[in-house]
Amino acid sequence: MRQRTYLSPTLRDIPADAEIKSHQLMLRAGLIRQTASGIYSYLPLGKRVLKKVEEIIRKEMDATGAQEVLMPAIQPAELWEESGRLGAYGPELMRLQDRHERDFVLGATHEEVITSLVRDDIKSYKKLPVNVYQIQTKYRDERRPRFGVLRSREFIMKDAYSFDTSKEGLDESYKAMYEAYKRIFSKCGLDFRAVEADSGAIGGTDTHEFMVLSEIGEDTIAYSDASDFAANIEIAPVKAVSANHNEQRVLDVEKKETPNVKTIEEVTAFLNVDATQTIKSLLFMIDEEPVLILVRGDHEVNEIKISHLYPGAQSIELATIAQTNEYLGCEPGFIGPLQVKDITIIADHSVQTIVNGICGANDKDYHYINVNVERDVSELKYADIRFIQEGDPSPDGKGTIRFARGIEVGHVFKLGTKYSEALGASFLNEQGKAEPMIMGCYGIGVSRTVAAIVEQNHDENGIVWPKEVSPFDLHLISINMKDDTQSQLGEQLYSQLREMNYDVLYDDRPERAGVKFKDSDLFGLPIRIAIGKRAAEQIVEVKVRATGEMLEVKIDELESTIKQLIEK
Amino acid sequence: MRQRTYLSPTLRDIPADAEIKSHQLMLRAGLIRQTASGIYSYLPLGKRVLKKVEEIIRKEMDATGAQEVLMPAIQPAELWEESGRLGAYGPELMRLQDRHERDFVLGATHEEVITSLVRDDIKSYKKLPVNVYQIQTKYRDERRPRFGVLRSREFIMKDAYSFDTSKEGLDESYKAMYEAYKRIFSKCGLDFRAVEADSGAIGGTDTHEFMVLSEIGEDTIAYSDASDFAANIEIAPVKAVSANHNEQRVLDVEKKETPNVKTIEEVTAFLNVDATQTIKSLLFMIDEEPVLILVRGDHEVNEIKISHLYPGAQSIELATIAQTNEYLGCEPGFIGPLQVKDITIIADHSVQTIVNGICGANDKDYHYINVNVERDVSELKYADIRFIQEGDPSPDGKGTIRFARGIEVGHVFKLGTKYSEALGASFLNEQGKAEPMIMGCYGIGVSRTVAAIVEQNHDENGIVWPKEVSPFDLHLISINMKDDTQSQLGEQLYSQLREMNYDVLYDDRPERAGVKFKDSDLFGLPIRIAIGKRAAEQIVEVKVRATGEMLEVKIDELESTIKQLIEK
Repeated sequence: MRQRTYLSPTLRDIPADAEIKSHQLMLRAGLIRQTASGIYSYLPLGKRVLKKVEEIIRKEMDATGAQEVLMPAIQPAELWEESGRLGAYGPELMRLQDRHERDFVLGATHEEVITSLVRDDIKSYKKLPVNVYQIQTKYRDERRPRFGVLRSREFIMKDAYSFDTSKEGLDESYKAMYEAYKRIFSKCGLDFRAVEADSGAIGGTDTHEFMVLSEIGEDTIAYSDASDFAANIEIAPVKAVSANHNEQRVLDVEKKETPNVKTIEEVTAFLNVDATQTIKSLLFMIDEEPVLILVRGDHEVNEIKISHLYPGAQSIELATIAQTNEYLGCEPGFIGPLQVKDITIIADHSVQTIVNGICGANDKDYHYINVNVERDVSELKYADIRFIQEGDPSPDGKGTIRFARGIEVGHVFKLGTKYSEALGASFLNEQGKAEPMIMGCYGIGVSRTVAAIVEQNHDENGIVWPKEVSPFDLHLISINMKDDTQSQLGEQLYSQLREMNYDVLYDDRPERAGVKFKDSDLFGLPIRIAIGKRAAEQIVEVKVRATGEMLEVKIDELESTIKQLIEK
Repeated sequence: MRQRTYLSPTLRDIPADAEIKSHQLMLRAGLIRQTASGIYSYLPLGKRVLKKVEEIIRKEMDATGAQEVLMPAIQPAELWEESGRLGAYGPELMRLQDRHERDFVLGATHEEVITSLVRDDIKSYKKLPVNVYQIQTKYRDERRPRFGVLRSREFIMKDAYSFDTSKEGLDESYKAMYEAYKRIFSKCGLDFRAVEADSGAIGGTDTHEFMVLSEIGEDTIAYSDASDFAANIEIAPVKAVSANHNEQRVLDVEKKETPNVKTIEEVTAFLNVDATQTIKSLLFMIDEEPVLILVRGDHEVNEIKISHLYPGAQSIELATIAQTNEYLGCEPGFIGPLQVKDITIIADHSVQTIVNGICGANDKDYHYINVNVERDVSELKYADIRFIQEGDPSPDGKGTIRFARGIEVGHVFKLGTKYSEALGASFLNEQGKAEPMIMGCYGIGVSRTVAAIVEQNHDENGIVWPKEVSPFDLHLISINMKDDTQSQLGEQLYSQLREMNYDVLYDDRPERAGVKFKDSDLFGLPIRIAIGKRAAEQIVEVKVRATGEMLEVKIDELESTIKQLIEK
């Protein structure tokens, strides 16, 4: 492609409203332009990258036997009523009416449409399993669109839906997608982790998020420094450390006056102890029932884990001051598990190991010291209810937990029968009996993946494309178009390199060398070939974008040099 | 692809609401399913065809140097206000509001978005010409969606937009698209014509529709039986035949009583003459001014042609009875051009050649005979104002006009500066002076093209895909899956044929031979390879779908046979 009339406008300055690097660089290198808040147009360079990522996805999906379909963006609202999501989805779901005032939604996802399709056309176990996917535009009216195409309102997704006859079948479909996703993100040149995640309210049993490691990520990942373990901190399990009471002498409980000492910080300062020695007590209301939650003072309660202990619960909330007074006769800050009656008490495993600990005395301005819950609290359940922390042992027993931020680019999810039951997608089994199909769903944010690639692959001068997703393979530059030797050699190489099946962007603009080189670094194609003063000697300058390596290469050695550099 | 679990459900019966063949066959062969009125999902077979058509288009567009982009479906309503189309587009334009109650439209077309993009990023003649295209989903809320994906509300279009610095540049861009379209539709295996069309209210100078010839088409095409000439009858020019007054003696005008004789049919019956001998007179009101229009009795007035004589006119309507009485002192049916004063008279060229003709006398129940307009009407303009008819000489002087019905699959259009002026897309010319960019737009209905291909390529048993767009190259069938020899040979050929780089659909279903053959004809892949009783002898049956030709072929000759048949 000749750059002179290529619609690839570059910006020298950082656009004011672009907070993160990928957004800045995608604007500056002319990959995207904003059409409205959270709504973008892809210019030719951006569209080329999008297509490369799509082709990587398509190839890997096809290799698993998944079948490509295309479903509409406009979906009848009735379908969403059938599944029960029309109300539940809230203002993120864009809605519209047609000329006959019939209600439609713009697809935020396609469970309803695909389930109704499969319901109508598959009746027998003989036609299963099936996994269908599409690469298609999705709509979510984000409250706060930002970060360019990383969180936008119209975006491209690959979504796949598997239909199986058994849980074992679903396990296989799930695993096939999981493995395909690993290959896809590896090919995209991403540093990512497959992370165990919360299955949310849907009650799936298994779910993984594919997280691209990045400081700007909105999720926190807990991962092991010595194994493959990685999980969203929302759900990362904590390995229970067994109590070792022999080390320390167990003392008798004492009540201490602690005036105005409420928080863990105040307690540790006042009593001159470590936070690990304290027991944090929080009263929760779970569907109107009080539940006293205990964690070690240096730990944080994880409400998602509590919700997993109460799978049917409609609401889980911290008790109000009034409620705390009502049930424990005391305000928060001085509450604790001793002498508590008729209230469920759940303690994190780590609380069991505290020897001679400190907790509130359910009496204003008083705490107990020398508390040992095993001895002092009669009815107590232990569970994993805290957030994992950096430095914790990895739950798989290998290594220590570290934290990283991640951008979610993919998600695999076992849906089970939620949609097939709601929409009546059943099949006749070998005995001729109807059963609901067992579903999985699998998403990749395609446009978001492009942004994540840029976020992970850039330097101070611009983008550094991994070769598999680079919009072009080579950037050929004639430094001085007015110099006939240079421009002629440019034309010659432009055709030769394309004949070798390279995608070539040819900078034939009547611009200064500085402008050309700056734009070239910004675009970030893997290899730059500059034709300059030594054109007459049939020598060009080759630069590797990623390493900055520079070579002077004779024309007749150019092909082998490029081949070597690209294969590296 | 193995057919057993391929989502390709076939229907034996013709779906009740599918009126035309392509709609019936696309449903029956499992290419599409309706999700809502005028809104369709593409199942795997349909998606494969769509992709093939898209790739043909993409390749030809890229070859012209056009640059692929991707614009959003959701567009700010303000952009459409800027161009003046927000009101003009009417209820076909789908509208919605976001969570902040800002107004948006779902793109029915993208002139506004692309013009604003180019306006912001191209400032100089040095960066022009540019032609950008996208293959993208469009939305038009058709009053009456029908014919499946031929007239639907969510559909796929390729739309391209060219930006030039001069009219000559636009001519070149236009020609490049015109030629690319011819190649695209030829590759799709379509019998089509590039047809001159009406440029509508936009006032473009040149426009062609690409029409697939088909009885179910909504447009009528006039074409020459001896040349490339083809035009929408709305605008097909009529070749003026020069008058030849020598042949017949010119007689004196006579006024004849013709009681209640008003229509051409009544006149010809009453006076026992041919319709070609009569002059049809119609009074039009053009922006409040009366204009008397004359055509030969056997011809029809073409209002579009009249509108081209009055390019600024806001309204062109047939006069009411009251208006006719006011201006001509007589009711319609007896009006004519003689003794008419202060009223513009426009006659079709053919009226000039009528010798001793008949027309109304502007007197109730009277007509004139022996009228010769050249002699009898003082102020008269001649113009081409009638519809062309079958049997007319072709306007290019070669052959005779025939009519055909056509499905519009493509449209190329010179827009000029309509949008660049409305949206301020200007460039600095070589003298540093700002000028509006000169635009063209070029559309292909991608999903509609798929339907048109089916409409033109089927027989009583199903679809007959042209090889370039067929979802698979080969249909391999093991007739009896319970027969080990057959199923083993099936597996063997399934891998061998794929290794030869053919796309193979393998019918491995435990179905009866009749079902398999019926489905195979319905799917319409170019070549069917059936493994049956002679499997043990390493002989299979090869059938060419298009011709019905059947061959028994030895396995070791299969490759060369297929190659020969496909290349035919």
